[in-house]
Amino acid sequence: MRIEVLCTGDELLTGLTVDTNSPYFMAKLFALGEQVRRTTVVGDVREEICDALRTLSGRCDAVLVSGGLGPTADDITAACAAEVAGVPLDENAEVLQSLQARFAKRGLLITPNNKRQALVPRGAEVVLNAVGAAPLFILALGRCTLFFVPGVPREYKHLVDAGVLPRIEALLAREPNRVFRASLLLRTVGLAESHLDARVAPLARIHDQVIFGFRTQSPQNHLKLVAEGKSQKEADAALAAAEHACRDVLGQHVFGEEGDSFGGTLGKLLVERGHTVALAESCTGGRVADLLCTDAGASRFFLGSAVCYANPLKEAWLDVKPQTLARVGAVSEEVAREMAEGARARARSTWGLAVTGIAGPDGGTEEKPVGTVFCAIAGPEGTRVEKNRFHGERGMIREASAYRLLDLLRLTLLGAGA
Amino acid sequence: MRIEVLCTGDELLTGLTVDTNSPYFMAKLFALGEQVRRTTVVGDVREEICDALRTLSGRCDAVLVSGGLGPTADDITAACAAEVAGVPLDENAEVLQSLQARFAKRGLLITPNNKRQALVPRGAEVVLNAVGAAPLFILALGRCTLFFVPGVPREYKHLVDAGVLPRIEALLAREPNRVFRASLLLRTVGLAESHLDARVAPLARIHDQVIFGFRTQSPQNHLKLVAEGKSQKEADAALAAAEHACRDVLGQHVFGEEGDSFGGTLGKLLVERGHTVALAESCTGGRVADLLCTDAGASRFFLGSAVCYANPLKEAWLDVKPQTLARVGAVSEEVAREMAEGARARARSTWGLAVTGIAGPDGGTEEKPVGTVFCAIAGPEGTRVEKNRFHGERGMIREASAYRLLDLLRLTLLGAGA
Repeated sequence: MRIEVLCTGDELLTGLTVDTNSPYFMAKLFALGEQVRRTTVVGDVREEICDALRTLSGRCDAVLVSGGLGPTADDITAACAAEVAGVPLDENAEVLQSLQARFAKRGLLITPNNKRQALVPRGAEVVLNAVGAAPLFILALGRCTLFFVPGVPREYKHLVDAGVLPRIEALLAREPNRVFRASLLLRTVGLAESHLDARVAPLARIHDQVIFGFRTQSPQNHLKLVAEGKSQKEADAALAAAEHACRDVLGQHVFGEEGDSFGGTLGKLLVERGHTVALAESCTGGRVADLLCTDAGASRFFLGSAVCYANPLKEAWLDVKPQTLARVGAVSEEVAREMAEGARARARSTWGLAVTGIAGPDGGTEEKPVGTVFCAIAGPEGTRVEKNRFHGERGMIREASAYRLLDLLRLTLLGAGA
Repeated sequence: MRIEVLCTGDELLTGLTVDTNSPYFMAKLFALGEQVRRTTVVGDVREEICDALRTLSGRCDAVLVSGGLGPTADDITAACAAEVAGVPLDENAEVLQSLQARFAKRGLLITPNNKRQALVPRGAEVVLNAVGAAPLFILALGRCTLFFVPGVPREYKHLVDAGVLPRIEALLAREPNRVFRASLLLRTVGLAESHLDARVAPLARIHDQVIFGFRTQSPQNHLKLVAEGKSQKEADAALAAAEHACRDVLGQHVFGEEGDSFGGTLGKLLVERGHTVALAESCTGGRVADLLCTDAGASRFFLGSAVCYANPLKEAWLDVKPQTLARVGAVSEEVAREMAEGARARARSTWGLAVTGIAGPDGGTEEKPVGTVFCAIAGPEGTRVEKNRFHGERGMIREASAYRLLDLLRLTLLGAGA
């Protein structure tokens, strides 16, 4: 099958909006065994849209068309579809009724503009939109099936899931040489992308039924494995073998999979052990606490964080000694140690974590350049401090510091040292 | 001029990677007065790339082609360009020399794979890449100029800025009916996108030389104004008039422009007044502090934040009374008040801000449903507490709470009340 994507909308051609819809459809389609062959983006221009519809329907089995189904005069996709198909636009009674119900529910009368959203090319199949106004409509042009969906991300995703993918899957099921796929995303920390790549490169050559893809969400790096087979069973088996081999060479750098958050993964480890943690932050400015609270249920393991930019607060909230601050300065091994121990003592938590450093761009010295960050972990068996040197701009240094601090605890809990 | 974009790379068609390169080029080109007419994305497939190069060069004056210039066997864009142009690939001496210098600097010998990056179609103009290996090369096909750049974002942006845009600008300067543009982005808070739209819609009709665009980065909403004119002066004047009118109807909802961060903008207001702030956070879990520390120099106005998930820490760090907690619970007006006053007293700051609420998805009651959030501001003239009810999932409630808390202080400083 040849499947392509057509997006319409001036905002996609002026740099104002990034198209995040298409990757959503592409990933789901890819998991079904098909890769989108081409994406085309055109503006809200009748000739461009009609030309693209003609060209794509001439060479494809299926096309997903998005955008231009709203209530305003700029929204011309349905009219273009009708023009290319050589049919009139009809007011669809079922769609009109659902639009009227939608407006009535809000106590509003439907406007002529909104009624335009009930116009679909004659002969098109219609699927109502449970989360918005414009429906999905499906039009056959020659041997090509065109799916028209609105560009609003929430509505796009809903209709792709509820209407488009099931129909494409049904078409795929009839394909004689269908490819089956199984996929998995492994999330890693503590490995640069080039090192991640280097570690798994030999495996990619061995596991030749599996595609290895990389994505950076600094400081996380993700490895996507997509296995292919002549049956789902074969694809699943190839994926399992590759996953096993990758986990072997990546070890505890892998902290989770697709939907896992870094803080939530650490939280699970703490809850399993009945442990709690308190934080003392300086240069990360609350970002470590933020990471720990991403998922619901954080109160089961997270007690609090003293974010102390000012030194007097390090004394007031964490009992850091003024003499220590005066002697070695806030960015030092000793202060990191006292902060971690202070947080642990004040919160009566199992673990106390502290971070103090220079995020930049100013404030660096020859002895303590920008990126110098001390991470401390205080626990039942004592306190350990690690000196790091991170690179990049301010945001990257803060993010790397926050991840490293939490990773110290994660690796300690996993018994790996750090 | 007709300008199009062609991106190559399987990762752009499987959903793994979102194309953020093209919007970068599009926005810069749009500012020069031209809109990209169409974007095409194809995989690493020779026939697809060649077909697209032929089609696009047949109808365009200029095409920006990105991706497929790396050192591996998948990287076939240069070979496709040569095939379509009907010329051989030549090893470019200047590029090879710069590649060798690049490797020598790292103490490495150049590999045959890397040498491939010195191959360019005969007759192409070459611009060396100061931040990576693959150069920009420029090829004329009939009346069309094709610009080939690598897909690595840092290299893409560098070469687009240094090599592509200046050449396109020179071509545009010769256009008889050139459009001149001037643009501006206004960042707002405290207004839903639909309300922002409704407020400026009447202005969009009056200022018909100006395009009004909207973008949501919840809870921020952005208004982009692009003015057009027959000269730069005319465009600038149209933009200034529209900006003035928009600021008038949006008032203090506008907190900044393109590069401004919300926390940084508030920081500037505090520094101007010689004020400082300390925080007490519960449901936002450090996110308010994080927002305040985005920009460098936060230590001039931000003293610290006590992130207290656990109630004993509200007592230890903020002197919240145990009786108050027992009587009305942590999510209450009284506790918010004591937290704000405690933070201010402990830190000896001009302002103390506090937030306590239920971010969900669990923990709501009939009396205090999920999304109930108390925001308190303590200052020289006393303490004020505001009860909010936010909607959406956990992350949205936390983000809305953090923004609202800081906005209370921003509006107070601006003398607008809140």
